[in-house]
Amino acid sequence: MLVNGVHHRTVWLDGHSVKMIEQNLLPFAFQIHDCPDYRATCRAIHTMIIRGAGAIGSAAGYAMAQAFVAGDDVAAAKAAIEATRPTARNLFYAVERVMAAGLSGGAKLAVAEAEKIADEDCTACQAIGEYGAALLTHNCRVATHCNAGWLAFTDYGSALAPIYLAAKQGKNPFVYADETRPRGQGARLTAWELGGEAIAHAIIADNAGAFLMARGQIDLMIVGADRIAANGDVANKIGTLEKALVARHFAVPFYVAAPTSTVDAACPSGQAIPIEEREPAEVLYQGGPDENGVMRTIRVAAPNSTAENPAFDVTPAAFISGIITEKGIFKPENISQALRP
Amino acid sequence: MLVNGVHHRTVWLDGHSVKMIEQNLLPFAFQIHDCPDYRATCRAIHTMIIRGAGAIGSAAGYAMAQAFVAGDDVAAAKAAIEATRPTARNLFYAVERVMAAGLSGGAKLAVAEAEKIADEDCTACQAIGEYGAALLTHNCRVATHCNAGWLAFTDYGSALAPIYLAAKQGKNPFVYADETRPRGQGARLTAWELGGEAIAHAIIADNAGAFLMARGQIDLMIVGADRIAANGDVANKIGTLEKALVARHFAVPFYVAAPTSTVDAACPSGQAIPIEEREPAEVLYQGGPDENGVMRTIRVAAPNSTAENPAFDVTPAAFISGIITEKGIFKPENISQALRP
Repeated sequence: MLVNGVHHRTVWLDGHSVKMIEQNLLPFAFQIHDCPDYRATCRAIHTMIIRGAGAIGSAAGYAMAQAFVAGDDVAAAKAAIEATRPTARNLFYAVERVMAAGLSGGAKLAVAEAEKIADEDCTACQAIGEYGAALLTHNCRVATHCNAGWLAFTDYGSALAPIYLAAKQGKNPFVYADETRPRGQGARLTAWELGGEAIAHAIIADNAGAFLMARGQIDLMIVGADRIAANGDVANKIGTLEKALVARHFAVPFYVAAPTSTVDAACPSGQAIPIEEREPAEVLYQGGPDENGVMRTIRVAAPNSTAENPAFDVTPAAFISGIITEKGIFKPENISQALRP
Repeated sequence: MLVNGVHHRTVWLDGHSVKMIEQNLLPFAFQIHDCPDYRATCRAIHTMIIRGAGAIGSAAGYAMAQAFVAGDDVAAAKAAIEATRPTARNLFYAVERVMAAGLSGGAKLAVAEAEKIADEDCTACQAIGEYGAALLTHNCRVATHCNAGWLAFTDYGSALAPIYLAAKQGKNPFVYADETRPRGQGARLTAWELGGEAIAHAIIADNAGAFLMARGQIDLMIVGADRIAANGDVANKIGTLEKALVARHFAVPFYVAAPTSTVDAACPSGQAIPIEEREPAEVLYQGGPDENGVMRTIRVAAPNSTAENPAFDVTPAAFISGIITEKGIFKPENISQALRP
């Protein structure tokens, strides 16, 4: 999508290099990070210069292709790439596809397969955008939580793809971006993305959702998903469950947007999804530029107190209006149908 | 309550001076602010060195008494005090009582009346604590939102008073303090208060409430109130409505604790309560000490985005289990009965 008026993907191959947007610097600086070999690409994935399931998948595929192009030990490269982010399913899928292509047809086929994986991610997100945009009416006000935009994929995004397309269709959507404490991905990444595409939006404290729904100021809510269980339960950023409950009370349609690769058929329900507890420091400290642009980390909580910091929650299928995938919109309880060939 | 092991009120008279805890510096520094005359006390109220309905009422009463003691123009003093925070009902009530006492009996009676007002605030909060503590079982886990602790009153607080008393009764409560974005009163003030009283607690992102309730980790929620309508609707810090809805879904009792002076009999329902919209900067920036203890203000949102910042919301009476007052616990729909003499 657009950054300062120029179209970018999050990650792409440029000769022998993998290039990517340096996401750790966003939204306060926009830089392209250059990975001259697969080792550098591994480091970039590990240090979250690139993050988000779709974007990591593309980066991993490109890294595997880099190893073939450079004549590296591809088995060692595969192991190194797989060790970067051990829970990212897209990563393993991409590495295996590029490995198989490279072993059968050499570096040229490996590169072609890596490009195909990246393109497929874009195509899937575009299809999500098309199905989702049909839900957005003229001048509609859409709320979203966390960042499920193009920065988390190779391009277009999941929850934001329908908004980008609706804007292109002249529907003039307005977006309420939940700040999404503690890490603030909504205030930082979603707002930055929307600004690049010149889509009208306002950041809100996570506390303001029910207030706006009570006043009829939110027509629709769309969020992403980290993992979807076979029964349609959705694990996503902490606070998603709260928003779904509040949306149901105020009869605001609540949609999840995600490629079908997010569905884990082996996971029967949300109860089987382990929830990561992250460091208290994410709640107790905040980082950002001061008035001189110098990055600072400050404490925002009482000096001797600590925090509990669950990173995700599970929204039961019953509170979800539909799951927008690249194959269409499914009732959560029917999401397994989306996996049929 | 205790600060570093020593009991304090938020505001008190010391000779001709009004002394108060400098709340703008909390929780990162603890200082006593000295107001040698009523003008200094007015400035302290206006600049929110002291804040919270009960604490402002006491400070305003003391300021009026200072004017009598110093032989100032008491009519001018009354006007000046009333101009500091034009929406604080307790302020007007206190100023009028001390004015009447001073006019009838001079400076000595004015001082006595001001002391009586402060003591009454403490007594009311202690009674709230007694009624509320009966709701807390051994080892119970209580969630609260924003700061309705002793810092907002002369002592003891409203929502936290039952917790302080339950702790003294050996019930060993554990408190989840909602961070309470955007201003962070929970992470800053509530956590600081609880630390001073050595009550076990954890700060949580506002997003984590539903997650903890879904896991059965919250037994009870108690919040304060800025204004209670005659029908039992409650205006309180933004996010309260969201918590009440989520608590109802998970069958977690949701109580409001407030002195009866918070009930506005002239206000028929929550719909009649105007909601203040505050500056976007509260959402977009955060302040606090850096690793060297230097206070910094940093941006925590995308550089070119703005925010909407409603400061309060209204929780309908139907979602409130009970209102804990100094006269007992009332069903919200019966709150007007609490105003009968």
